[in-house]
Amino acid sequence: MTVNGANGIDTTLEIARAARGASLELQAASLESKSLALHRIAEQLLKDKETLRQANQRDLDEARARKDKGELSEALFKRLDLFGPDGSKFETLLEGVKDVDKLADPTGQVTYACKLDDGLDLYRVTCPVGVLLIIFESRPEVVVQISTLAIKSGNAVILKGGREAAHSNAALHASLTTALSSLPAGSGVPPQAIQLVSTRDEIAALLKLDEYIDLAIPRGSNEFVRYVKDNTRIPVLGHADGLCSIYLDESADTAKAVSVVVDGKTNYPAACNAAETLLVHENALSTVLPEVARALWEKRVQLRCDTPSHGLLSQLNPPSGLLREATPEDFRTEFLELVMAVRTVPSFADAISHINTHGSHHTECIVTENQKQAEEFMRKVDAAGVYWNASTRLADGFRYGFGAEIGVSTNKTHARGPVGLEGLVIYKYKVYGSGQGAGMYGPSKKKFLHEVLDGREELQRRPGLA
Amino acid sequence: MTVNGANGIDTTLEIARAARGASLELQAASLESKSLALHRIAEQLLKDKETLRQANQRDLDEARARKDKGELSEALFKRLDLFGPDGSKFETLLEGVKDVDKLADPTGQVTYACKLDDGLDLYRVTCPVGVLLIIFESRPEVVVQISTLAIKSGNAVILKGGREAAHSNAALHASLTTALSSLPAGSGVPPQAIQLVSTRDEIAALLKLDEYIDLAIPRGSNEFVRYVKDNTRIPVLGHADGLCSIYLDESADTAKAVSVVVDGKTNYPAACNAAETLLVHENALSTVLPEVARALWEKRVQLRCDTPSHGLLSQLNPPSGLLREATPEDFRTEFLELVMAVRTVPSFADAISHINTHGSHHTECIVTENQKQAEEFMRKVDAAGVYWNASTRLADGFRYGFGAEIGVSTNKTHARGPVGLEGLVIYKYKVYGSGQGAGMYGPSKKKFLHEVLDGREELQRRPGLA
Repeated sequence: MTVNGANGIDTTLEIARAARGASLELQAASLESKSLALHRIAEQLLKDKETLRQANQRDLDEARARKDKGELSEALFKRLDLFGPDGSKFETLLEGVKDVDKLADPTGQVTYACKLDDGLDLYRVTCPVGVLLIIFESRPEVVVQISTLAIKSGNAVILKGGREAAHSNAALHASLTTALSSLPAGSGVPPQAIQLVSTRDEIAALLKLDEYIDLAIPRGSNEFVRYVKDNTRIPVLGHADGLCSIYLDESADTAKAVSVVVDGKTNYPAACNAAETLLVHENALSTVLPEVARALWEKRVQLRCDTPSHGLLSQLNPPSGLLREATPEDFRTEFLELVMAVRTVPSFADAISHINTHGSHHTECIVTENQKQAEEFMRKVDAAGVYWNASTRLADGFRYGFGAEIGVSTNKTHARGPVGLEGLVIYKYKVYGSGQGAGMYGPSKKKFLHEVLDGREELQRRPGLA
Repeated sequence: MTVNGANGIDTTLEIARAARGASLELQAASLESKSLALHRIAEQLLKDKETLRQANQRDLDEARARKDKGELSEALFKRLDLFGPDGSKFETLLEGVKDVDKLADPTGQVTYACKLDDGLDLYRVTCPVGVLLIIFESRPEVVVQISTLAIKSGNAVILKGGREAAHSNAALHASLTTALSSLPAGSGVPPQAIQLVSTRDEIAALLKLDEYIDLAIPRGSNEFVRYVKDNTRIPVLGHADGLCSIYLDESADTAKAVSVVVDGKTNYPAACNAAETLLVHENALSTVLPEVARALWEKRVQLRCDTPSHGLLSQLNPPSGLLREATPEDFRTEFLELVMAVRTVPSFADAISHINTHGSHHTECIVTENQKQAEEFMRKVDAAGVYWNASTRLADGFRYGFGAEIGVSTNKTHARGPVGLEGLVIYKYKVYGSGQGAGMYGPSKKKFLHEVLDGREELQRRPGLA
């Protein structure tokens, strides 16, 4: 079954083709066109507020019934709500559209300019990736967030949301395409740029369409990301879960350790950037760990400790149920709740080795007053984020100043860490020649000049380059 | 069967683990260490010249026997020769090692620096990808070229060469690991950084090891690249074949058209950046095409023409066998020989549409005197290289001034076009804090400053950042 009730493969093929066609138009859309599109979207969402509220209410009603039967968690139910108790969530959503409009254009940036020869210039210019496939769960506002990021970066997008938000997603999608349909002809931002599919069956069909889709971003469980990677040739930006560690070095400052560990573990335990493992240098066991443990216990965090740390902490009169022996599995577990594994390491090198073996390459932190040690840690730990004396919870596109994020990547190609607009562009090489061929250059022929030019100056000289 | 004659899976797992271990050391190797490693490699290759010559001779002898039986082409046989008739190929190889040493370090570059708050700084610093898997054919000097690029960019590499060059590859690999073994302890460039596997069976096993291998670069046929993409979760940098077009616009200059088309088609027809399709605006048919066709015929190029161009060119007294009617298949064919498909298009938009539908997103060219048209072409054509009045054959890392290339990518993520050292690095975010947590910021709490800093100045202030 599909959105149109037609044959799955045919319909997804049509959807992918339409998105590809729209993406080719978007390649040449001006910043002004994209900005107008975002304005119209904000206006249309406001106009459609009541329709959106009704659609969202249908999802909420169906979800409440499932929640009452115990099929849906309270947290998931809350995330479905597009408006919030006071309507502030919807306001925030509209503000978000305007914020994306204010971000710098990630396309048309000249990142390399080189005079190859007289009358032969080479430019590397950023451009949209093409067609994105984004698969996400529950929160319906993601439809708007991702669509606006896609438009701003000149990409078409195929969205697949969770079925529990189907009515909200469809209403939001209708609102977005209405807004884009109102644009003047030839604006370069056609309504086909945003496609919505609604059933899981369509994912399998879409994953085969590598001819039309350039990048897949599955936002979901680790298993789902692996399923996607196993079933497609499309490059996957893996927004995998995070197993983040904090290492308390022998010279760690206790106050900083308390602040960083408590925030890392308790600020939002269900997030992928929450800390799961606490590594403690054996010389910091009796000096730093006790105060950290007391602060965590105060927040009701259960500590699962290896033998040395358990021995020490059991003398501190731990609250009932908040101290137990760790199993090896605990050091490979993303708890996502108020539980933390604690392990003693005999050396700095062992901490790094533990992290590089057990971690998920997401965000890893060292607490130390020794700058040399900190910088060695940041160099040797293989992760998207390496932190010195700061909570892993800071790993986030908004906090990094990107204005918005499409997700967090633990990939080691294309884009890593929180991914903002820059992760949605690639580049093309543009060559301005005057009839040159490769055969004119070589031994005893002409030589290439390879004179690196200033990209900004070139853009002033050749405004059509962008 | 494997290099060690042991169980395939176990051995490839050991190889991948060794490479991963080496890559973690390489993450922290200094520029001086990497430079010393490259020096030692050049020295060792020179020392081993006779051994290498003997190994290469064995491959050549075996290949000659296969060539005589018609199992191997002359071109492939020639590419096996590591020394060339006068030994100059070997000299070029040694020069290449020194050239890579001279290239700028692609790692440790600060590409974003932002003061998040007082005492809380964020940096995006380039770093190695990790472990590369590179699969290539015939030419044994690729072992050295890729290994030196990997070392310079701080990556470990697993190499799989063609079986016809097995002796040469093994001898070169031995020479490289001897050189790295001679480095002082703790240099950060361990001999395990370069791994060689020799059988096709091992590829399948390696493709499953996404836990250890970060990027696969298959250099070979389109089918082989698709096989790799279908059988791995590892990101693949597709060095696919190229179906490049040249479009003669109605305002094309005839002399430039002749130069660009003749070079694009005949400079090296077997290359992926050679031109395969010639699109001609109908208004340029009688004005520009005749001279272009005569020049191509002079180079013995067969033209496979659509009806209008065939009608016109048949009046020019074409040399026997060099003009025939095109089939639809001809416009989807990468000939890689002296054959070119010719199609008439009624408009500029049709040329773009033909290219975006039939092309392989490699390198596409417009010949025109109309700059506005040229820039619109370069914006709307979805390809790694978009050229105005220059031969597609210029699409090459050396010609672009990268100093070296690992291949050409038609991917639309990570790296596109000729890939030099920059395509072998990614980045990590480094945060320097003083105890901050995410919970300190927000409405009615502290605000982030997001003050963008100058990366170079920050690197001077904090040399340990790189």
